Amino acid sequence: MTISRDAIDHRPESTDAYAADETTIQLRLRTKRGDVDRVRVLYGDKFDWPGSARRTTMTRIRRDARFDYWQVAVEPPNRRLCYAFHVADGDDACWVTEWGVESGAADGFPTTGSQRPLHYFEHPFLHPGDIIDPPEWAENAVFYQIFPERFANGDPDRDPDDVEPWGGRPTGDTVFGGDLQGIIDRLAYLDDLGVTALYLTPVFEAPSNHKYDTADYTCVDPAFGDEETLRRLVSAAHDRGMRVILDAVFNHTGWTFEPFQDVLERGAASPYADWFHIHEFPVETDPPNYDTFAFVPSMPKLNTANPEVREYLIDVATDWIEAVDADGWRLDVADEVDHAFWREFRREVKAVKPDAYILGEVWHDARPWLAGDQFDAAMNYPLSYAMYDFLAYGTLDSTGFMNRVDRFLMRYADRTNAAMFTLLGSHDTPRLKRRLDGDRDRVRLALFLLLTFRGAPCLYYGDEVGMTGGDDPDCRRPMVWDRDKQDRALHAFVRDLIATRIDHPALRCGEIRFDRERSGGDVLVYRRLAPDGDPEAVVAINRGEEAVRLPIEGERTTADEATANPLFTTEQHEPNDREVVVADGEIQLPGTTGAVWLRPRGQ
Amino acid sequence: MTISRDAIDHRPESTDAYAADETTIQLRLRTKRGDVDRVRVLYGDKFDWPGSARRTTMTRIRRDARFDYWQVAVEPPNRRLCYAFHVADGDDACWVTEWGVESGAADGFPTTGSQRPLHYFEHPFLHPGDIIDPPEWAENAVFYQIFPERFANGDPDRDPDDVEPWGGRPTGDTVFGGDLQGIIDRLAYLDDLGVTALYLTPVFEAPSNHKYDTADYTCVDPAFGDEETLRRLVSAAHDRGMRVILDAVFNHTGWTFEPFQDVLERGAASPYADWFHIHEFPVETDPPNYDTFAFVPSMPKLNTANPEVREYLIDVATDWIEAVDADGWRLDVADEVDHAFWREFRREVKAVKPDAYILGEVWHDARPWLAGDQFDAAMNYPLSYAMYDFLAYGTLDSTGFMNRVDRFLMRYADRTNAAMFTLLGSHDTPRLKRRLDGDRDRVRLALFLLLTFRGAPCLYYGDEVGMTGGDDPDCRRPMVWDRDKQDRALHAFVRDLIATRIDHPALRCGEIRFDRERSGGDVLVYRRLAPDGDPEAVVAINRGEEAVRLPIEGERTTADEATANPLFTTEQHEPNDREVVVADGEIQLPGTTGAVWLRPRGQ
Repeated sequence: MTISRDAIDHRPESTDAYAADETTIQLRLRTKRGDVDRVRVLYGDKFDWPGSARRTTMTRIRRDARFDYWQVAVEPPNRRLCYAFHVADGDDACWVTEWGVESGAADGFPTTGSQRPLHYFEHPFLHPGDIIDPPEWAENAVFYQIFPERFANGDPDRDPDDVEPWGGRPTGDTVFGGDLQGIIDRLAYLDDLGVTALYLTPVFEAPSNHKYDTADYTCVDPAFGDEETLRRLVSAAHDRGMRVILDAVFNHTGWTFEPFQDVLERGAASPYADWFHIHEFPVETDPPNYDTFAFVPSMPKLNTANPEVREYLIDVATDWIEAVDADGWRLDVADEVDHAFWREFRREVKAVKPDAYILGEVWHDARPWLAGDQFDAAMNYPLSYAMYDFLAYGTLDSTGFMNRVDRFLMRYADRTNAAMFTLLGSHDTPRLKRRLDGDRDRVRLALFLLLTFRGAPCLYYGDEVGMTGGDDPDCRRPMVWDRDKQDRALHAFVRDLIATRIDHPALRCGEIRFDRERSGGDVLVYRRLAPDGDPEAVVAINRGEEAVRLPIEGERTTADEATANPLFTTEQHEPNDREVVVADGEIQLPGTTGAVWLRPRGQ
Repeated sequence: MTISRDAIDHRPESTDAYAADETTIQLRLRTKRGDVDRVRVLYGDKFDWPGSARRTTMTRIRRDARFDYWQVAVEPPNRRLCYAFHVADGDDACWVTEWGVESGAADGFPTTGSQRPLHYFEHPFLHPGDIIDPPEWAENAVFYQIFPERFANGDPDRDPDDVEPWGGRPTGDTVFGGDLQGIIDRLAYLDDLGVTALYLTPVFEAPSNHKYDTADYTCVDPAFGDEETLRRLVSAAHDRGMRVILDAVFNHTGWTFEPFQDVLERGAASPYADWFHIHEFPVETDPPNYDTFAFVPSMPKLNTANPEVREYLIDVATDWIEAVDADGWRLDVADEVDHAFWREFRREVKAVKPDAYILGEVWHDARPWLAGDQFDAAMNYPLSYAMYDFLAYGTLDSTGFMNRVDRFLMRYADRTNAAMFTLLGSHDTPRLKRRLDGDRDRVRLALFLLLTFRGAPCLYYGDEVGMTGGDDPDCRRPMVWDRDKQDRALHAFVRDLIATRIDHPALRCGEIRFDRERSGGDVLVYRRLAPDGDPEAVVAINRGEEAVRLPIEGERTTADEATANPLFTTEQHEPNDREVVVADGEIQLPGTTGAVWLRPRGQ
């Protein structure tokens, strides 16, 4: 067969060719699915060509419905790299360079134009500053998202006058009295659950219950506490080995933000006139003649191209880290703020806390922000859609799921994938349980998928005790603390699942590879590779109603034991008979179950 | 036929989707060559979907051997854009979104996953700071590159002791006494030639004749003049409407650069120990245990990740602009310096001179530097290879040339293409005349191609009077000022050609479109589109030996005249009989000739 030249793709200085560490460039190439059987790289230093030239073979690590994806790490001589790919299948072979694809044998060189490597791809110099290195703690974290107004009321003295009884159904402007002291009081609960990092939605002064309409970035909202409460919260979390990230709402402010009020009052004469995107003066508010978040006049968009605004906001970010020792920022509506701002933000934030985690709210392809110069990770909503399409909506079978996810995984650097914030829901979506129509078995299966998957998983408060709720504001109900109203079996399951993840490096931060041999239809099998000789993990999921059988391929309960009973299953805390059975060289997965095994190296 | 899904490509927030001006995003899509007959875009504001949704049709503007390239400019409602492409051919049709390609009819919406535009491509916000806007003067410029040591000796008092007689053959370390006063003295010559901008290779203190081994960035080399001489040169050039750009050698310094000498002396104890990339102390020089330019120990690489180095170099760049009113910088070995440095460099340079031209030495695909955040343009060596492959080496016919160049043109934004520094040679290559084996006719044809082509063309000093020379140092011979030794007919030709370009907006800065109907084999025909209703220009080139005939398609001498005699030809200054003849509805191009016409709008 002739190799499909049209499908071949590689873009230098992108996540197709990035600095993985001080000495290594990770190279990736795309070919048509099933089209070629060998891909090699010819690489060297252009100033010592061909003296420095070397060849190496790429590995096919992923595939989607159309393409295969190949990868290899190379060490550029003298940190300078020029390179070309050689793609071969049977009798056909071609070179891939910056100038395109041309036929040619691997024992020669690509020849277009000249024997010199002038037209090869280049990664001209491996700069340490370009290395994509999210904080290691985030690659190993299990997050828990808290909406402070709804988690726990620890200081009734701070309750607003119109506070409603805990447990009611929220409307857009209900307040229930949740606060930071409440979170402090419940750290033991969170620690026991096993989460290692907290993400708090905004805590700064703002009129709404969600606080995404900031009035004052320099003050904790008095209904939540004060700077001292926030400091105590972070400190107490740190004492338990938990990190805390805060929510930076820098795309827009609230109506009552003083500079905006000043512009409303003084118009073009305000010293803040250029802090927003006012199309003309005087300011009109209905409809607004200024840019806003979505179409919300009370959320005027900030002009982050204005150096004063940049300095103000970046000071907010660094001051809070310094004041309360926060461990990073989640960035609200991050994709609508300019890249230059985020680059400066990263520089300054990492200067005060090198292992701060910078997490962008980007609901779509986040490559423009994840090249190492802006964010460490993005909220992985696209992965959540794929998970729901597979587990809930039936719009993807396991092959479709693997294809879509492999495609997503190729967008980002390996370590970015490890640090991506993976989730099944948030304050901006219906809850997990609602999206699964209350099906407890599927809720466990979804949590099992999330918590055995690549990325830094985040639980949305209360999902672990079976809370439900539809779109905002219904997904923001007060946390259920009454144990009689909690799904205790689910809680035990989640607790055990988190512990299993944390205990096994492969599950916690290992690379992911789909086992396409054993996957198909309702069955999804994937391996989590282990760093440093640890055993890898193998995960199998059956989303269907019917039991399925899979061959055992070296799966073990632990690295030492010779039995193939699972390390953990979705059913072990359930009083049912749907056990995962291993016998006669086969795994039997009942309907709507999942299980994980270990597999020592070389199995 | 089934549309080839594998060939379809679009990458958001790249030159496939970039801010063209305050209200416009330029969108581009790639499809398989000849594969589809209609491409449309569905676009709108995700916060008002489908209320804001609109459709528009893309135009196929380029093609290469494998692909067609489509383009359309859209105005995002509220500066927020989400979009999907619809590709159709006969009965087959598909949608292209962030999630891939899926079949579907244009009267619906792309449906993967959800009816909502969650999986469409996004350009989340059009930030004015992201607009790709090189200086307008550069888009309209004709550059002239001067190697100061070899252009003219205007101040013999500054001659080094070992100066050789003007006109000899240079070796690596010959000096001939060229200086800045010499350039000032010859500004009338340059003005008469018609060039509008000068690029000077380095003028700062350095031991070599080429000055790429800087000893002191803050001093003009005493053999060339002093700060006052440089100021007078720029001022005198400005008086004639000429801009002057200087050469910033920031990748590495010279051996005698004081901080490097200090490191050699004091090792790790030097305050400059971190200014370079020293692998270990003590410093060894043979072989060097520090990074260098290529393998040259006397050119130690600067550590631009060090804030002190960044500040030092950026101060150099801004101080010289302020001191002598220079109009921009050519950046030596720009691709080996980190992007963070260049972003800061751009910010600071544009702050002191908003229309400074920032030109990177990048010999390969320069996309990573040309997204609007770093350089305005790069030296377009890849285009020069294509020109030589077509005109000199015969390795490309006109179809191959068009394919390769259309591919290159799609890498960059339209205005970047206008400002790209196009050249047929420099101090780093053999001269034009040598590469064309001294063939005067082909020299004219090559200059005609360069000076009627898209991009800001640059003449290398002396090429206009027929100088020749091989690789460095032979390409750096002293300028021939003796009129008896100059090719005066060539000079007249170049002068006239520059004037023709300058006089016609289409030739000066108009978009380029290849006329694939009339091109083929030895014949290359292209149109330069005109802004604002000016007539477009049509250029025809015959690189072959034999005369060829082409149909006339609206070509005119001027916009007003009804005759189709060319506006300008390669032969008009030559005493030969190879005239371009127009008769009987045909253009007859003799061998190795070219001509340009105008074509009023609507023809």
